[in-house]
Amino acid sequence: MAKIMAINAGSSSLKFQLFEMPNESVITKGLIERIGLNDALFSITVNGDRVKEITDIPNHEIAVQFLLKKLTETGIIRSLDEIEGVGHRVVHGGEIFNDSAVVNDQVLAQIEDLAELAPLHNRANATGIRAFRAVLPDVVQVAVFDTAFHQTMPESAFLYSLPYAYYEKYRIRKYGFHGTSHKYVAMRAAELLGRPIEQLRLISCHLGNGASIAAIQGGRSIDTSMGFTPLAGVTMGTRSGNIDPALIPFIMEKTGKTAEEVLEVLNKESGLLGISGVSSDLRDIQVAAELERNKRAELALDIFASRIHKYIGSYAAKMAGVDAIIFTAGIGENSDAIRARILTGLEFMGIYWDPTLNQIRGTEAFINYPHSPVKVLVIPTNEELMIARDVVRLSS
Amino acid sequence: MAKIMAINAGSSSLKFQLFEMPNESVITKGLIERIGLNDALFSITVNGDRVKEITDIPNHEIAVQFLLKKLTETGIIRSLDEIEGVGHRVVHGGEIFNDSAVVNDQVLAQIEDLAELAPLHNRANATGIRAFRAVLPDVVQVAVFDTAFHQTMPESAFLYSLPYAYYEKYRIRKYGFHGTSHKYVAMRAAELLGRPIEQLRLISCHLGNGASIAAIQGGRSIDTSMGFTPLAGVTMGTRSGNIDPALIPFIMEKTGKTAEEVLEVLNKESGLLGISGVSSDLRDIQVAAELERNKRAELALDIFASRIHKYIGSYAAKMAGVDAIIFTAGIGENSDAIRARILTGLEFMGIYWDPTLNQIRGTEAFINYPHSPVKVLVIPTNEELMIARDVVRLSS
Repeated sequence: MAKIMAINAGSSSLKFQLFEMPNESVITKGLIERIGLNDALFSITVNGDRVKEITDIPNHEIAVQFLLKKLTETGIIRSLDEIEGVGHRVVHGGEIFNDSAVVNDQVLAQIEDLAELAPLHNRANATGIRAFRAVLPDVVQVAVFDTAFHQTMPESAFLYSLPYAYYEKYRIRKYGFHGTSHKYVAMRAAELLGRPIEQLRLISCHLGNGASIAAIQGGRSIDTSMGFTPLAGVTMGTRSGNIDPALIPFIMEKTGKTAEEVLEVLNKESGLLGISGVSSDLRDIQVAAELERNKRAELALDIFASRIHKYIGSYAAKMAGVDAIIFTAGIGENSDAIRARILTGLEFMGIYWDPTLNQIRGTEAFINYPHSPVKVLVIPTNEELMIARDVVRLSS
Repeated sequence: MAKIMAINAGSSSLKFQLFEMPNESVITKGLIERIGLNDALFSITVNGDRVKEITDIPNHEIAVQFLLKKLTETGIIRSLDEIEGVGHRVVHGGEIFNDSAVVNDQVLAQIEDLAELAPLHNRANATGIRAFRAVLPDVVQVAVFDTAFHQTMPESAFLYSLPYAYYEKYRIRKYGFHGTSHKYVAMRAAELLGRPIEQLRLISCHLGNGASIAAIQGGRSIDTSMGFTPLAGVTMGTRSGNIDPALIPFIMEKTGKTAEEVLEVLNKESGLLGISGVSSDLRDIQVAAELERNKRAELALDIFASRIHKYIGSYAAKMAGVDAIIFTAGIGENSDAIRARILTGLEFMGIYWDPTLNQIRGTEAFINYPHSPVKVLVIPTNEELMIARDVVRLSS
């Protein structure tokens, strides 16, 4: 039995989950927040209970030391030697990484070079990797990229209709994100459908605070809604998704904002929050729409669902049909109301969903009628498990 | 019999077409180019022959005087009194105009006010209207707006996922364009299908140097691919269509360009031209792809067709199915190769097209197999006739 750690490092946070492999059970998980501040918050699950501690954690390396000390102190592991590998979520793998990679100096340098394409994320991810390398120098580290699964997209899908030199010189293209999640649910869908993934045309809807849709043909991502950055595609909690690009200069002129400031508005003040004026959280918006009859909240729900609905039509066209639709992540797993809005009106393409089955939350389930030619599945995603699996696969 | 003029005024040009109504025959048509320069070029059809003349035309008012003088000199009309109305294409009608409008001082002021949303176009259109009012003060003038047909879109379709205040304060929303063309082919499709337009779900593909797709349900536009400006949507001759909006600040930083300069690149150096590096003209690109086996030309064709293909899936989903697909404008009417690329892989939604019938160019035709549940039509557009019809409708 091997213990494998899955890590998601942000600029001031570190999420962790410890797996026992190959049986894939979760030994513990937790989070360190507000790294760099005096009142950093450490929380961890010990024997099923959540334990919290406020302490001074000046940087990621000390966060890792603190975490490992806690793991032995609490008896979750007896010795650090038990940890046989650490997997790290890395947002951007550019065109270099079409699969996860064992970290060495070159890989780490490449991750940092790619920070140009995802400044906040890749630097934070690299900081997490450096911290574990410093504290556990003899343990294998694996980088698992959000973009890697989408590297199978053909050029006709990933290229923008811009001067071609922009792609050659500046690496401007569609990369797509949430790849680890899309891959996980696609593989799981094939298992649940009892069919080889090579024969399947799947549309995967990862709907969380960030949201993206992927067209997955034969197990390979052939198109996805996010783009050069995670801003593009469908409406999200605070992100606009696609807009007319001519709006950026127009908004700059109207508001006196710089391009970077407008981008900030598109990333943080738009989406469900911008339309509704209520919240970026879909649950708050549902309450406002249903209980308070707030019209802009209702409009936000309508827009959110209808843009996803249109992507399903678009990707079915792309694959000349579809075998199954998958819903995952916070909203996708838990909101029957949103799933119902998205699925209504897709009968013409063979999607017959069952309102009773659709009522489930957060568990794997088929929600289509038995006779439906296209199946519809809810599959809770598990990016951490995918990370742990990749550590085992690449370190053995 | 009434003679009605249809006018499309650009900043340095004036296109005209003279109709005899109600029988809708074209008496003459022509173009004045390079207005404001010493070598302005006037061309007109007289008895089926194209007659050209180079002369000094300092402004639009003199262009109109010159045109009217030529009409009587050549005997096309005996007297200016025969012209009973003039219709003007106006690009932007904002939220004010959901139909064509008889021009009065207020309407003209509104058109000029809307120039904020379409600076180059609306000013030029207004200049054309002013010129005709000066020269033919007693003749009714009608403004026909490219945006008017799309004013039936519901808020959930026209609203961007931006802060709602941007819509209220700055009129930021999807307007859509090519409305006169989409309306014409939709009405004509209903006639050809022999069904009331109220019962039809149509997807209209206006594919010219500019290109847009519209979802038309019950005769009303409910969604369209162009947006706040004609830049958005599918790949066009030189326009990028949709891109990740985050690319604008990124391109600014990489190239040192201002936001306006980047917008210029997106409008004039992108699209088919940007991808292929060959031309903005689809015919040149087809030659390069087929005869010279130019890979980027092939890529441009692939991208152009596949983005439209995806819109068809998307809009079919939006209307819970589709009854007919319509192709119009230069490429839509004439390129069987592009139509074939777009239609391939849509059988799953009931679209069965006939490769033999598809070989037609520039004439009205059904190109689906008889058993196809969804019909596919080629319909040459006629925006000028729509303008003339609206003059008759609104002036009688």
